[in-house]
Amino acid sequence: MNFTKKGLLTKIVGCHRVAMVTLLGALACPPAAAQSGDPLPSWNAGKTKQSIVDFVSAVTKPGSQFVPPPERIATFDNDGTLWAEQPMYFQLAFAVDRVRALAPEHPEWRDQEPFKSVLAGDLNTALAGGVSALMRLMGATHANMTSDEFDAIVSDWLTTAKHPKTGRLYTEMAYQPMIELLAYLRANGFKTFIASGGGVDFMRGFAERVYGIPPEQVIGSTGEVKFELRDGKPVLLRLPALNYFDDKEGKPVAIYRQIGRRPIAAFGNSDGDLQMLQWTCAGPGPRYCLFVRHTDAEREFAYDRSPMGVLDVGLKDAAAKGWTVVDMKNDWNTIYLFQKE
Amino acid sequence: MNFTKKGLLTKIVGCHRVAMVTLLGALACPPAAAQSGDPLPSWNAGKTKQSIVDFVSAVTKPGSQFVPPPERIATFDNDGTLWAEQPMYFQLAFAVDRVRALAPEHPEWRDQEPFKSVLAGDLNTALAGGVSALMRLMGATHANMTSDEFDAIVSDWLTTAKHPKTGRLYTEMAYQPMIELLAYLRANGFKTFIASGGGVDFMRGFAERVYGIPPEQVIGSTGEVKFELRDGKPVLLRLPALNYFDDKEGKPVAIYRQIGRRPIAAFGNSDGDLQMLQWTCAGPGPRYCLFVRHTDAEREFAYDRSPMGVLDVGLKDAAAKGWTVVDMKNDWNTIYLFQKE
Repeated sequence: MNFTKKGLLTKIVGCHRVAMVTLLGALACPPAAAQSGDPLPSWNAGKTKQSIVDFVSAVTKPGSQFVPPPERIATFDNDGTLWAEQPMYFQLAFAVDRVRALAPEHPEWRDQEPFKSVLAGDLNTALAGGVSALMRLMGATHANMTSDEFDAIVSDWLTTAKHPKTGRLYTEMAYQPMIELLAYLRANGFKTFIASGGGVDFMRGFAERVYGIPPEQVIGSTGEVKFELRDGKPVLLRLPALNYFDDKEGKPVAIYRQIGRRPIAAFGNSDGDLQMLQWTCAGPGPRYCLFVRHTDAEREFAYDRSPMGVLDVGLKDAAAKGWTVVDMKNDWNTIYLFQKE
Repeated sequence: MNFTKKGLLTKIVGCHRVAMVTLLGALACPPAAAQSGDPLPSWNAGKTKQSIVDFVSAVTKPGSQFVPPPERIATFDNDGTLWAEQPMYFQLAFAVDRVRALAPEHPEWRDQEPFKSVLAGDLNTALAGGVSALMRLMGATHANMTSDEFDAIVSDWLTTAKHPKTGRLYTEMAYQPMIELLAYLRANGFKTFIASGGGVDFMRGFAERVYGIPPEQVIGSTGEVKFELRDGKPVLLRLPALNYFDDKEGKPVAIYRQIGRRPIAAFGNSDGDLQMLQWTCAGPGPRYCLFVRHTDAEREFAYDRSPMGVLDVGLKDAAAKGWTVVDMKNDWNTIYLFQKE
């Protein structure tokens, strides 16, 4: 048996879980559901779940809708789509914690915004300065260190900091139905990417472990970085300046730059994801676009318009174009895995 | 048998060609050479070839040097490393051909540099204007169109334009030993990336077909791109402005931004690749850095210092740090596949 044969390799790479089936002589890659029970157990039966299964079946079965595995690219927003984003973006909670930790070294922050208000616990006032206040906050907490130093700080925070409402690690607040969806898509030959406004290196601190998405498939906002030789040893120094803001019109542009292919499926939860969905679903052939809508005040949060996420124009586009809108309260029987404990 | 088990999946993903061996009970991923004859037939036996095989064996065998598949990242420069770069970078040849094709629509070019000299066939004078001349040339030939339009033009050129010395398609001038090396690394669980000063979208026009490297694993220089709705249909418009120049210090920075992991192996041919190699080989654990040196005037080109590629400081660093330097004339028995016809 020759494993360097391109056709067989493609099948193995594109369709891992059916590798054995392939080896035993089957030719196609059936949807995951066909072999191991329900691959989406946290999704209630209904038209939302069915639309996902129908799309995956269509693009993986031989026929007019078939899409070759290399073109099965799916992009996901992160905040509010793969994990929660209330009462503030988790990366903002990280920045706030960092300001507190660094404050003793910065006595000048007592009189400087946005630090003064952050230290006083008044985030609204801190962020009243808009983008420039946010950038000062991010610069002071995400830069002026090497890439390795930053990774260590993020890793430490992710394994210790707790969410104010649930008391859980932030990584425990990843949406179980979306984790299942990511795995389901990958089991059917998709390559899954994050395309988020969040900082790319912050997300890489947990994306592989929590979502199964390796660092090279995480696209996000970036800061300026400088290569430097320190005592002959090369380091990458993070500078306190924004390089790219991966939101709204920036998302399809960043996806084009980094992936170089138009996704065939895109998942978001706010108007910041709208252009990504528009671009994805305007391509030829089968396409799938989905918004997660936060409708569950009890188990998660209920909002369409929050300082941390607005879904307004997106809902109208979704209705007009037939995109799927997840009603978290009714479509998901589990939101966080720990709620099943 | 449960194919969703993470361990088995990792083995299948990380070590495709031995999937069957794994299924039959073997536990490790032996180097490709062990199973299908010589995976590097275009490389002459000797210490260069042996150093590659030794490195791959070390990181894939259980032991102190073992590297898990997700961390087996290898980055390759393109021009002069994966394909030739003389008498001019092939992308520059593309730009020259585009200037000629577009000249009838631009009568003003007859009096404007660098276009005037390009049209007169005098590239030296055209490029005497340095980076700003080059950027004008690139802007006029690579921008002011949608991403889809550009892809179509590149595709057309790649399947028709011929190299002035060999009379072959430019894609036929990919180095056969490097194509074998890419495949050998992938067969041993590596993920192979391009990290080149070349334009990312130009390279994506052939990287998958010629090198087996998918678009999302190509890193290169980028232009500004704008998302636009045209009659309600989203397009990505290429603007005549440089976004990022992926050369020298820019290479490790771009690799960090896009891959988010430090490679364990890096391959280049010029001082423009030096920082990528420095950063790669300064990391902990087993590392491999290699320069391709152009020493074969008869079958390829012989140069260390050319307007299209200088290997000077890099040679000194390679000697000091024990990196491998390929002597094309002696280490490669085949350079281009068509030379065997």
